[in-house]
Amino acid sequence: AVAMPAIAQSAPTVKWRLASSFPKSLDTIYGGAETFAKRVAEATGGKFQIQVFAGGEIVPGLQVLDATKDGTVECCHTASYYFVGKDPTFAFDCALPFGLTNRQLDAWYRHGNGLKLMREFFATYNVHNLPCGNTGVQMGGWYRKEIKTVKDMEGLKMRIGGFAGQVISKLGAVPQQIAGGDIYPALEKGTIDAAEWVGPYDDQKLGFNKVAKFYYYPGWWEGGPQLSVLVNKKAWDALPKEYQAILEIAAADAHVEMMAEYDAKNPTALKQLIAGGAQLRPFPKDVMDACYKAAQELYAETSAKNATFKKVYDDMKKFQADQVLWGRIAEGTYHNFMASVR
Amino acid sequence: AVAMPAIAQSAPTVKWRLASSFPKSLDTIYGGAETFAKRVAEATGGKFQIQVFAGGEIVPGLQVLDATKDGTVECCHTASYYFVGKDPTFAFDCALPFGLTNRQLDAWYRHGNGLKLMREFFATYNVHNLPCGNTGVQMGGWYRKEIKTVKDMEGLKMRIGGFAGQVISKLGAVPQQIAGGDIYPALEKGTIDAAEWVGPYDDQKLGFNKVAKFYYYPGWWEGGPQLSVLVNKKAWDALPKEYQAILEIAAADAHVEMMAEYDAKNPTALKQLIAGGAQLRPFPKDVMDACYKAAQELYAETSAKNATFKKVYDDMKKFQADQVLWGRIAEGTYHNFMASVR
Repeated sequence: AVAMPAIAQSAPTVKWRLASSFPKSLDTIYGGAETFAKRVAEATGGKFQIQVFAGGEIVPGLQVLDATKDGTVECCHTASYYFVGKDPTFAFDCALPFGLTNRQLDAWYRHGNGLKLMREFFATYNVHNLPCGNTGVQMGGWYRKEIKTVKDMEGLKMRIGGFAGQVISKLGAVPQQIAGGDIYPALEKGTIDAAEWVGPYDDQKLGFNKVAKFYYYPGWWEGGPQLSVLVNKKAWDALPKEYQAILEIAAADAHVEMMAEYDAKNPTALKQLIAGGAQLRPFPKDVMDACYKAAQELYAETSAKNATFKKVYDDMKKFQADQVLWGRIAEGTYHNFMASVR
Repeated sequence: AVAMPAIAQSAPTVKWRLASSFPKSLDTIYGGAETFAKRVAEATGGKFQIQVFAGGEIVPGLQVLDATKDGTVECCHTASYYFVGKDPTFAFDCALPFGLTNRQLDAWYRHGNGLKLMREFFATYNVHNLPCGNTGVQMGGWYRKEIKTVKDMEGLKMRIGGFAGQVISKLGAVPQQIAGGDIYPALEKGTIDAAEWVGPYDDQKLGFNKVAKFYYYPGWWEGGPQLSVLVNKKAWDALPKEYQAILEIAAADAHVEMMAEYDAKNPTALKQLIAGGAQLRPFPKDVMDACYKAAQELYAETSAKNATFKKVYDDMKKFQADQVLWGRIAEGTYHNFMASVR
C-alpha cells in the first residue's frame, strides 16, 4: 500500500565535499567514494549531494583527516593506517600486520567491540567513521631477487610503510617511503630492491613485473585493509537522523561493492601478470614466522607506550583468536578442498 | 552546508508486510529481515514501514515465494533453494553443492553476470530479488556413527534437502525431508542416522550433540548460502526511485550484518558443543571426492534438461574457476598461516 502522507514533510538539501586520499587511477579504491556518493544521492532523490575529489585536488591525500577534523571538507575517504604517525590506534580501522581479514573485521566491528571502540577513538579527532570498502588480503610485493630465507631480508631496501616497515626493520631490512608514481623508476634503477603496492589489479597498472619479476604473497601486513569514510562530527550531528541512516547503509553497500570488484578483477590481472613474466612465489615459512614474531614484539612495545592502543589491541587479539579457530573448520576446509579439485 | 529546499517535496507513507521463511528461533537468519526493515524505517524517518512475520504466522515458510508472486504479501525473506522443486535455477541465488562462497557470490553478483542473470530469472516469477544475508560455509551435520570411508555413506538415512540429497543418493545414501523441530526425536530414536542443520550457533539450540555425537565439516552443499528479500514486481515498480534505492542499500547492510553475526557467534557455540561431547571430524577426502564427482554428474544431467539452469551454471562455473585460483594465493595462504601460528 502506497499512500501520500496527510502532512507534507520535506527533506533538506545538503551539499558536501568528500576528499579522497586516492588518485583516480586506483579506480577500485577511489571508486568506493563514488559508489558511496551515488547511493546517497539515489536514496535521497538527489537532495543529498556529495562531490568527490581525488587525492590532491582540494586536499593532499595524506592530509584528509586534518581537513575533515577542521571542517575544511565535511568528509573524506581514506585508509586510516595512513595516520599511525599521529596514533598507532588508527591502524585497527584499516589493517595491521597479521591482523583481521575482511570478514573478521566486519564481525569484530558489528558483533564484537570493534566499531564501538574505534568510534570512541575517532571522536577524539572530531570525526565519525563509516566502514566503506576492503581490498581483501593484498599481495606481498615485487622483488628484484628471490627471497629464499629470512637472511635475504637483511639490507633489503623495500618500499613499504607504517607498521610493516617497522616489522621488517627488526629483520634488518630498510623500509622506504615512496609515493606511488615514483616506485617504478626506483625499482628500475635499483634504488630500491622491492616494493609493495596493493594486489594484481592495481599492481598491473604500474607495470612492476617489467622491473622486478618475483611477485610474493601473501601481504601479511594487509590481511584485509578497510577503507573508511570519515565525517566531521559537527557536520554529522547537523544531519537529520534519516540522512545519518542513509549514510551508514550507503557506506555498507559501497563496502560490499569494493570487495566484490577486487575479487572479480584480481584473477584476470594475475593471469596477465604471469603471462607477462611475473614469477609467483609464496614467502618462505621462516620469513613469515620471523615477521610474525617481530610483529608481536612491536605490539608489546606499542602497548606499553599507548594505553588506547593496548585496550583496542587486547580486544581485537582475543576476538581474532576465536575467529582463526573457527575459520579453520568449515570455511578453511571448504576453500582448501575446492582448491584441490581444480 | 545544510539548507531547506525551495520547494517542499514529500515522500509517501508505505506499509508492507514481509513473510519470512524462518522461525524466530533461528534468530540470526530471521533477524536479517528485521535488520532490513529497521534500516528502511530509519532511512525514511519511519515513513516506509515493513512488518516482519515469522514463517507460518501469515504464510507457511515454504510458500512465501508464491505469496509474494501473487501479491498476498509485498515481499518475503527466504533461502531461494527452497524452490528448486519449481526450477533448479533458484539454487544459484542461495547455494548449490560445491558452489560459491559468500565473497565469491558477492563478486559474481556485482561484478560478474550473477545478479543480472538471476534478476531475469526472478522476473519470470514476478519478483525482484535483493541479496540479504549469508551464513558462510555451513557444517556437514550430526552423525550417530563415524563416516570413515565413502562406503559408510551406503544406506545412510540422512536429513538433508534439495540438490545435496540428490548428490548423496548417488552414493547410496537415503535423503530424508524432515522439518527442523522433528529432527531431534528422529535422530534420538534412530529413525535417521544423520542430520544437517546450519552451523554451531543454530545447531546448538537444537541440542543434536546429545543424540549424535559426530559433527562433520565442511557442509560442502552450502559453501555460502545467501538469503534474499524477494519483492512483488508490481509493489516494486510502484515505489518512488528513492525508496527502491533505500531498499537496495538497506538489504546490503543486512547482508553484511548477518555474515558478521554468524562469524561472531559460531566460535563460542562450537567450543561449547565440543565441551558438551561433540566429536569434530572432517569428511574423509574420498567422501568429498565422491560427492564432488556425483555433483558434477547431477549438474550435467540438470543442464541437459533445463536451458536456463545451463546458462546460469556455465556462467557461474567459469567465474568460480577464476575465483578459486585467486583464492589460493594471497587469501588462502594468509588464512593458512594465521591458523598455523595459534
